[in-house]
Amino acid sequence: MPTFALIFIITIIMEFSAQQIAQILAGEVEGNAEAMVSNFSKIEEGKPGTITFLANPKYASYLYDNQASIVLINRDFVLEKAVPKTLTLVRVPNAYFALAQLLDIVNQVKPRKCGIEQPSFVHPSTTMGEGVYIGAFAYLGENVKLGENVAVYPNSYIGDNVSIGSNTTIYAGVKIYEGCVVGNDCIIHAGAVVGSDGFGFAKEGEEFKKIPQLGNVVIEDNVEIGANTAIDRAVMGSTILHKGVKLDNLVHVAHNVEIGENTGLAAQTGIAGSTKIGKNCVAGGQAGFGGHIKIGDNVSVGAQSGIISNVKDGRRIIGSPAIDVNKFLRSSIIFPKLPEIYTQLGKLEKMGDQKAE
Amino acid sequence: MPTFALIFIITIIMEFSAQQIAQILAGEVEGNAEAMVSNFSKIEEGKPGTITFLANPKYASYLYDNQASIVLINRDFVLEKAVPKTLTLVRVPNAYFALAQLLDIVNQVKPRKCGIEQPSFVHPSTTMGEGVYIGAFAYLGENVKLGENVAVYPNSYIGDNVSIGSNTTIYAGVKIYEGCVVGNDCIIHAGAVVGSDGFGFAKEGEEFKKIPQLGNVVIEDNVEIGANTAIDRAVMGSTILHKGVKLDNLVHVAHNVEIGENTGLAAQTGIAGSTKIGKNCVAGGQAGFGGHIKIGDNVSVGAQSGIISNVKDGRRIIGSPAIDVNKFLRSSIIFPKLPEIYTQLGKLEKMGDQKAE
Amino acid sequence: MPTFALIFIITIIMEFSAQQIAQILAGEVEGNAEAMVSNFSKIEEGKPGTITFLANPKYASYLYDNQASIVLINRDFVLEKAVPKTLTLVRVPNAYFALAQLLDIVNQVKPRKCGIEQPSFVHPSTTMGEGVYIGAFAYLGENVKLGENVAVYPNSYIGDNVSIGSNTTIYAGVKIYEGCVVGNDCIIHAGAVVGSDGFGFAKEGEEFKKIPQLGNVVIEDNVEIGANTAIDRAVMGSTILHKGVKLDNLVHVAHNVEIGENTGLAAQTGIAGSTKIGKNCVAGGQAGFGGHIKIGDNVSVGAQSGIISNVKDGRRIIGSPAIDVNKFLRSSIIFPKLPEIYTQLGKLEKMGDQKAE
Repeated sequence: MPTFALIFIITIIMEFSAQQIAQILAGEVEGNAEAMVSNFSKIEEGKPGTITFLANPKYASYLYDNQASIVLINRDFVLEKAVPKTLTLVRVPNAYFALAQLLDIVNQVKPRKCGIEQPSFVHPSTTMGEGVYIGAFAYLGENVKLGENVAVYPNSYIGDNVSIGSNTTIYAGVKIYEGCVVGNDCIIHAGAVVGSDGFGFAKEGEEFKKIPQLGNVVIEDNVEIGANTAIDRAVMGSTILHKGVKLDNLVHVAHNVEIGENTGLAAQTGIAGSTKIGKNCVAGGQAGFGGHIKIGDNVSVGAQSGIISNVKDGRRIIGSPAIDVNKFLRSSIIFPKLPEIYTQLGKLEKMGDQKAE
Repeated sequence: MPTFALIFIITIIMEFSAQQIAQILAGEVEGNAEAMVSNFSKIEEGKPGTITFLANPKYASYLYDNQASIVLINRDFVLEKAVPKTLTLVRVPNAYFALAQLLDIVNQVKPRKCGIEQPSFVHPSTTMGEGVYIGAFAYLGENVKLGENVAVYPNSYIGDNVSIGSNTTIYAGVKIYEGCVVGNDCIIHAGAVVGSDGFGFAKEGEEFKKIPQLGNVVIEDNVEIGANTAIDRAVMGSTILHKGVKLDNLVHVAHNVEIGENTGLAAQTGIAGSTKIGKNCVAGGQAGFGGHIKIGDNVSVGAQSGIISNVKDGRRIIGSPAIDVNKFLRSSIIFPKLPEIYTQLGKLEKMGDQKAE
Repeated sequence: MPTFALIFIITIIMEFSAQQIAQILAGEVEGNAEAMVSNFSKIEEGKPGTITFLANPKYASYLYDNQASIVLINRDFVLEKAVPKTLTLVRVPNAYFALAQLLDIVNQVKPRKCGIEQPSFVHPSTTMGEGVYIGAFAYLGENVKLGENVAVYPNSYIGDNVSIGSNTTIYAGVKIYEGCVVGNDCIIHAGAVVGSDGFGFAKEGEEFKKIPQLGNVVIEDNVEIGANTAIDRAVMGSTILHKGVKLDNLVHVAHNVEIGENTGLAAQTGIAGSTKIGKNCVAGGQAGFGGHIKIGDNVSVGAQSGIISNVKDGRRIIGSPAIDVNKFLRSSIIFPKLPEIYTQLGKLEKMGDQKAE
């Protein structure tokens, strides 16, 4: 089945009125209910015939001279002045969420790849469900199991005894080592590696002796893994990503790590060996978690933080080593004054010494 | 056409005298104009028959007992003592730049790969200019457009509707998702990913709901992208790298980021979503840029900095959160004295309290 | 030759008694010498019929209600109370090392891949020793030399004139640029890139002029390189990893870097150009080394450190910029008190001023 350019699809499919969009999203129209749109635009770049959205209040100023035809906006957003007459508002409970719904509709009409391209390498022992796509130069080793509607894009490597659940997409050039398990409804982006050896060595004199890494990686349902992220197999047992985990690009997950449900880690975050992160946590980019520690549920970790000890449920921390967010921010404001503090303290001491004489 | 080993080429091609080199570089000979060289060497490892260079004054001490036959040196460099008689100086306005010119000459005689290796996957709808190289196991999807002299090395994936300008080199195992655009004279190094989904989710109760990422990545002319760097597609519109941008290895560029002309970012730097970086900026390694911020032109960001708010043109900043470079350095010198400061302050307070009694 | 699932192998092969294990490891049995095990388990998850180990004292509490059948434990470990009667102790000089020995035995009975899968691309000029494995979609360019028992997994790219020593494993999707040299007994994990261009540019007005990178990468014997790590070729000469070096995932090694014997660098560490790191050093994750500096032997660098100048042998440093570990820890404890210090100092000054009036 041929794949059309995305922009083309959007143009063909999406010719909606403000009224129709309000119906889909259970929103209310303010302005011309007949305003028509056939594409999306960012609020900074609104063009006639497009729909845009305002979710982040930082961008509110772009609203008042916007050339877009429709804007999705929060129901409780209060206009500071009039918007252009060519701009129709569709008010919804949550503009960002409504946008996601609309994008989803467009996304679902994109034709899915299907079938087995040649040349590919599919071991005779491989089993697969209906609707699978295997791209050219994809490699499926012995006893690989693919569920229904799995897509394995070109140049991917699926090692022996790997199983992949239904509706999961493996993008180009992903490498999954033998014996790993991927759930249903997952997305693994290009270049990601799953199941490489953990970094485990015992010192033998001055040399490192390799500890064989005999475990695997288990990825539960609805997990998304970013481009060029690397997840090591366990030394024994499993490195586990529980359901709903979202990892951004270039994240490092060491051996025997366990990440709880619905935890999201931004790009270039690293987690050292055997650390357990709880549910519903978030970490900003380039955060680092030390090894053998336990992070509770609902923890929020700032970008570039270094976490070196256990963290209780619900804490918000930042810094390296990480401390309470508010403490960190207050101390960071004082940090540039350190030379002044040092000088003043010297003066006071001198005064004290003089008085003591 | 056969490819010779590089070292072999250099040996064959480059048998130049100091006089010839001075002519090529518009420099002046000091010493034996007939000194011959057939290879390069680093100044710490100068060997007879090789040409070396002195650009960084840190390495000046290696000059005075160097066994190389020729050294490129800045016109205004003042010798502290005599160099070996076997070492001829070629003085040029800028030794590093002169080196680049010489390396360029050698580089240009390296035979270029050309033609289509088999097996490769080239969709019938692909169009390509003269002089193209397609390596084995390269994948070119539907409606891919390649300009003249494009090289696509083995195991690369070029998704549907991608266009790549003339004289661009895509090294082995690069993955470019559908609909992305790459300009002329670009170099994308092995393992880089262009066009993966941005990390965009809306919270739906405790779960992350994926925001489909329907935009693309646009890379303008003369951009170089390092190994295993990942550049996400925009949620809508484009993630843009303007002409002359240089990204090092393992850099992360999130969705809807825009990087201005001739900006260079060192390895492992990360940029969060929707941030705009101006022209002619530089960032050291492992720097992190927060989301939705605007960095001016000619900004210099130190290694490992964390940038969390807008930055004006021309500023030089470092630290996490980043502050003025000089302030940071001064405060960093005081940082190790904090325990001493705390103790002294305690003593002064005690004295104050005693006097108050 | 068929490959069995790992878990299956362990089950079949390993049916050992405590007595047998004690003999293999030169240890002593405490408890039931006839206790049988057929698999490994982590100490937190000990199950009947498995052997576990206690190396890190943090996990000692798991010992006293453990359901495993055997535990490897240090000879000098003193029990705080009785262990379950079903748990037999095997005391050894070093439990972690003993574990490595046992895992090694299991690992060695794993069947090795062998032979040349089709389709693969092997240039006629390639030479290779006995026992080589070439996976499907692997690419071996001109004049590639492979020693005995080399494994090149699927979708890997070995450029022209690369030589790889005996018993080295190149996992899936590794990319090695032309002219690089890899020693014996090395392991390069999936997605790693060896020999990409160094990030070298000379400023020409506002534009970056590329400095051709004409050197290579030399990797000596017994080196392990993690998933998606990137190692740049030298501008001239070689980027060198000496024997026994271990790099974790997503590490960046710039051009002309040299890393000494038996040095280990944790994940996401980056090293800027021309820096030399000595022997037997270790660095924690996300550490960054500036360019053109020299790190001595036996240096220990903490996670997330930033090293900007030379470091003498044997130092233990951390922080950005890095300082002595103990100084850093003491100052980090004071850092959150900065607002308090600033306020108190203000009060003292005010008091001083009042007295001075």
